[in-house]
Amino acid sequence: MSSSEPPPLAEHPPGTASHPAPTHPVCRPVRVDEPTAATGGLPHAPALSSPRPALPSSIPGDAAVTGPKAERLLSGPKGLGTTGVHPRRPGKPVNPLGPPNPALPSGIPGDVPVTGPEAQQLLGGPKGLGTASAYPQRPRKAADPVGNPVPGLYYHPVPEPDPVRVAEVDRRIKAWAMDEVDLYPEEWEEQFDGFFVGRYMVACHPDAPTIDHLMVAARLMVAENAVDDCYCEDHGGSPIGLGGRLLLAHTALDPLHTAEEYQSAWARSLQSDAPRRAYRSAMKYFLDWAGPSQADRYRHDMARLHMGYLAEAAWTQTEYVPEVWEYLAMRQFNNFRPCPTITDTVGGYELPADLQAQPAVQRIIALAGNATTLVNDLYSYTKELASPGNHLNLPVVIAEREALSERDAYLKAVEIHNNLMHAFEAEVAALTTAHALPNLLRFLRGVAVWVDGNHYWHQTNTYRYSLPDFW
Amino acid sequence: MSSSEPPPLAEHPPGTASHPAPTHPVCRPVRVDEPTAATGGLPHAPALSSPRPALPSSIPGDAAVTGPKAERLLSGPKGLGTTGVHPRRPGKPVNPLGPPNPALPSGIPGDVPVTGPEAQQLLGGPKGLGTASAYPQRPRKAADPVGNPVPGLYYHPVPEPDPVRVAEVDRRIKAWAMDEVDLYPEEWEEQFDGFFVGRYMVACHPDAPTIDHLMVAARLMVAENAVDDCYCEDHGGSPIGLGGRLLLAHTALDPLHTAEEYQSAWARSLQSDAPRRAYRSAMKYFLDWAGPSQADRYRHDMARLHMGYLAEAAWTQTEYVPEVWEYLAMRQFNNFRPCPTITDTVGGYELPADLQAQPAVQRIIALAGNATTLVNDLYSYTKELASPGNHLNLPVVIAEREALSERDAYLKAVEIHNNLMHAFEAEVAALTTAHALPNLLRFLRGVAVWVDGNHYWHQTNTYRYSLPDFW
Repeated sequence: MSSSEPPPLAEHPPGTASHPAPTHPVCRPVRVDEPTAATGGLPHAPALSSPRPALPSSIPGDAAVTGPKAERLLSGPKGLGTTGVHPRRPGKPVNPLGPPNPALPSGIPGDVPVTGPEAQQLLGGPKGLGTASAYPQRPRKAADPVGNPVPGLYYHPVPEPDPVRVAEVDRRIKAWAMDEVDLYPEEWEEQFDGFFVGRYMVACHPDAPTIDHLMVAARLMVAENAVDDCYCEDHGGSPIGLGGRLLLAHTALDPLHTAEEYQSAWARSLQSDAPRRAYRSAMKYFLDWAGPSQADRYRHDMARLHMGYLAEAAWTQTEYVPEVWEYLAMRQFNNFRPCPTITDTVGGYELPADLQAQPAVQRIIALAGNATTLVNDLYSYTKELASPGNHLNLPVVIAEREALSERDAYLKAVEIHNNLMHAFEAEVAALTTAHALPNLLRFLRGVAVWVDGNHYWHQTNTYRYSLPDFW
Repeated sequence: MSSSEPPPLAEHPPGTASHPAPTHPVCRPVRVDEPTAATGGLPHAPALSSPRPALPSSIPGDAAVTGPKAERLLSGPKGLGTTGVHPRRPGKPVNPLGPPNPALPSGIPGDVPVTGPEAQQLLGGPKGLGTASAYPQRPRKAADPVGNPVPGLYYHPVPEPDPVRVAEVDRRIKAWAMDEVDLYPEEWEEQFDGFFVGRYMVACHPDAPTIDHLMVAARLMVAENAVDDCYCEDHGGSPIGLGGRLLLAHTALDPLHTAEEYQSAWARSLQSDAPRRAYRSAMKYFLDWAGPSQADRYRHDMARLHMGYLAEAAWTQTEYVPEVWEYLAMRQFNNFRPCPTITDTVGGYELPADLQAQPAVQRIIALAGNATTLVNDLYSYTKELASPGNHLNLPVVIAEREALSERDAYLKAVEIHNNLMHAFEAEVAALTTAHALPNLLRFLRGVAVWVDGNHYWHQTNTYRYSLPDFW
């Protein structure tokens, strides 16, 4: 999928763009009966009956959400009380709302209720979402990035991501990709480096307590790109047969429960190509940090993503250019959403499942995801035009369906993006003014920071992206 | 999808099997700018800021799950406390664990904790899941159904479904299909009647407090079948372009949030063909009864279902016969799962999201869904062999991949089904012995009853199914 999200990690080496390598060992499935280093498979449904260590009873997160406001919001007599239900990493209890994390400035307002105008200023005012204050405490200069923003685009600049963290995430993600999951051959190394995983993740998750938390997001992002590259796009991908490939890969996230005779062949299959090795390993690490509801949320978002890939593939195969609204609907699924919605896991806390499922929260997440995804359409426009095949993206679809020039279609796509950003911020302001629940505020701020970090990464990734000459 | 689930509502009229009607007005999309009776679209994300009536503060469900057992189970200091967070139908508070529902016998053990041998007897003993006691109080004779069970199949017989309820569900579902969503033309009436929706739903949901609750399940089931029939199978379906059709239909369940200019074209699209009209309407009713987390769970299961359809379509298109484990993986997605997992909504209570997400509960749901789905493979075997095209189902895949005769492959498929049923019951017994939480017990019993009712419906639906001559 040309415009699929997240953007592909790897591009064709110069001069080979028209020669994808469908049989490359990285993407080529190996036979499931080939011996593999690990027998694979996600751990079998850990039994409920194996109690994991409880969080400390004094965890302030629960107290903070059980006041009258929480009761009003959730209309239940008991409040939320779910923050503490998911133990995390044995021996490493997370105290999401306790003393400020050393990586966060002590003045960060996210951990206390903020209502009224303050909430608007913090989370939804016309000047954006106050992301600057969410960055680590060490002295920071504003980012002076290479790369220009799309003219007219509504976005919020971010401070320069902590270079120490960036370098460490880059080092660790490369080690994981090469040593743990054998993700790509040496000749793709430059493309991997050109993705700037560390810059992306640190910019999007400034409140991650540790590098380990950042790595949870980094592995999933890289794995998502590997699946997109190898199954859908540049490296041997095709719309033909994609539904089968994606479903089998999805079982690395959402495990198979079948008759014993067939369980081991499935487990071995998860080692049989790079996308599945990456999904399986990234999910395994994620499950060390995420509670069951957070894992369920992620699986749901990934099912959405895979449905989006498959809709785009169907249109590619039938050479159908969708209506603009149809394209936007597809793009709500083929979407960055799985990345910002794990912001709480990466931040070391949990947005309770019942809050996450509220229609207002779902709408905010969808709007944020849609805005970030259109940022990708805008920055990758020239890259996609230069790629082989007819790539759908928003400006292309608008030009075709609304008979506009390329330039006017592009400018209209910018407008649509801005409209979504404004809607996102207005909904956040309305919700947080009415319901200043600490976990909710922190989660929404995390999503907003992800939106800004995602823009920053696109703007600065001149290795991948360049703007059209429309101005 | 030949073997896709839920089974298609409608079959070809005799003599027309080789002439599907892709342009039939029911399944043919109409232009989205055509005038429609309603402007359509799911209600826009109801704001969190509109408080809905709280449940009574004395709701015993919360109290019941906060004891030491709950704490041990969930490892959190606060227990669950989520049962009451979702208000339902204004003015109609549901008290899931209060006085026994009038429709249930007073002795039904689901509303009180049951541990040890009792739990085993109720939920996981070798004699099955005690479904008989879950049926309404009026005198019941054991069902004396037409149709024979598959020889050797492990299943539990059910009492005859209440004929009064069956007739009323049949009457109402037909009125909904014809008058509200214009689901099918008159000539398909016999096929619609031959699906026996009322018998199916009443057998599967004996604890539904009212016919209204049963109708929530009935509409969704019929809508799921309409999508399968019209997009995937008998009535104009095709694997080509299916990804686009399913995604656009999925937005009737999981709404689009986009720029205002394009929102209305999307809303109109939900009225533009029978599958989308049916999804939209059925979901709208469901949302009147389901809490946000229950709705989120259903959307997730439907995304899984659609991924399953698309995997099967991909294999159909590429004429790929999957390995047995691959088929079983696809069938875990192209699966009845969305039907049993709404058992709590249909029963008028809620399994809290954090319990539902527990790996042990997820495993149980998957095993139950897989067993019910293989029941369909077994009962629809001769029907699918007689249909045009090469239909995948478990016996066919086993015969091909393991070089067995048709008979031996069929018998092996029976064994696999039985293996899954035993695994399901063993996991239920283990979980409920360790954690006798009332909501969890009731939910698991609801799933088990659904499994039994689903078998009963297949066995008795001689209009659709007949057994092969292998014994």
